[in-house]
Amino acid sequence: MRPMIVLEEKGFSGYGNKQISFSDKGHKSEDIMKLNPRGQVPTFKHKDVVLNESKGICQYLESQFKKQGTQLIPDDPDKQALVLQRMYETDNIFDKAARNIFYYTRSTKKENIDEEHLQKKRQDLATELEYWEKYLTGDYLVGESFTMADVYLFTNLCFLVRGSLSLDSRPNLKRYYEKLSQRPSVQASWPPHYKESSPTQMFALV
Amino acid sequence: MRPMIVLEEKGFSGYGNKQISFSDKGHKSEDIMKLNPRGQVPTFKHKDVVLNESKGICQYLESQFKKQGTQLIPDDPDKQALVLQRMYETDNIFDKAARNIFYYTRSTKKENIDEEHLQKKRQDLATELEYWEKYLTGDYLVGESFTMADVYLFTNLCFLVRGSLSLDSRPNLKRYYEKLSQRPSVQASWPPHYKESSPTQMFALV
Repeated sequence: MRPMIVLEEKGFSGYGNKQISFSDKGHKSEDIMKLNPRGQVPTFKHKDVVLNESKGICQYLESQFKKQGTQLIPDDPDKQALVLQRMYETDNIFDKAARNIFYYTRSTKKENIDEEHLQKKRQDLATELEYWEKYLTGDYLVGESFTMADVYLFTNLCFLVRGSLSLDSRPNLKRYYEKLSQRPSVQASWPPHYKESSPTQMFALV
Repeated sequence: MRPMIVLEEKGFSGYGNKQISFSDKGHKSEDIMKLNPRGQVPTFKHKDVVLNESKGICQYLESQFKKQGTQLIPDDPDKQALVLQRMYETDNIFDKAARNIFYYTRSTKKENIDEEHLQKKRQDLATELEYWEKYLTGDYLVGESFTMADVYLFTNLCFLVRGSLSLDSRPNLKRYYEKLSQRPSVQASWPPHYKESSPTQMFALV
């Protein structure tokens, strides 16, 4: 979703994306394996360039099309540093949500789930979200405009909300999530199944 | 170690780094907490800019001092894309080494270690290293010169070799590791305790 939002922000609507399905093993299809021998997503092709790491794709697009559409990494050193700081700092959310909760519950048999361990991990994620609640004093993470830091944070939030995280006790995150959800680049990149099927309860107790 | 190598490559020798000790809880000291409320390393300060994410620091230094010292991210789109691809692709090594083996063995009591699980994780890491052995056909990961991709790969290799990974059956990685170990920026950034105390056997069976 991150590279897709960046493509939209750079004005590349209708760039010819191809949605694949994990359950149909689309990521292991011949077409993908030719471009990405690891059989993973995303896979990105621009002329002869192939890039298969979402952070690399975002950085490449910003570098190659810096002045086209929305500039996502500011030139001003102070702002640039804060955008970079927040971008990579979102890895903390991913680790605490995806690795510690999503992968754990998915890879552990229901009867073997250590509820005490899981509760501790939920608390870690809740504590992590307090940082972001505090950071979000304005409409965007850094300054007065949408940056790469928002691309990184918003996509992490999507994953959490999809897993039934409640933002009701997190007013800044809630306002932010609702505002950015309406952004055209986000609307154009929204995974179709996020609209259709019902979410899991993975993060309901966080 | 990554930001330190980049600082050296950019000609900032003697930039006033301060080594702290985890065992003395230096990362929770007042000085650090003031700059980095998470109490983590690295912490980086440049004028009023504070950055606490190693990838962010590397990207900031390259962006602000692009033409100073070694240019670490090439302008040429094809080379740039490959550098970015390999940079972020090294996260696979980190995940398979640090998360799956180092953290697991460190956080599990010796009598509770699942040797079969651990053996599978060692195999995953060995398979991961095969990719890199194949990538390394020349002196550097991308093209004929040292890039940010080498900063990322080499520091991952250091961690593995420090944990007694043998490179004997991996001739390209061995040659690469030995050559880059001699690079002045690396020599200047080598953690002192890497030279002094004996390494663990964490990756000896990989």
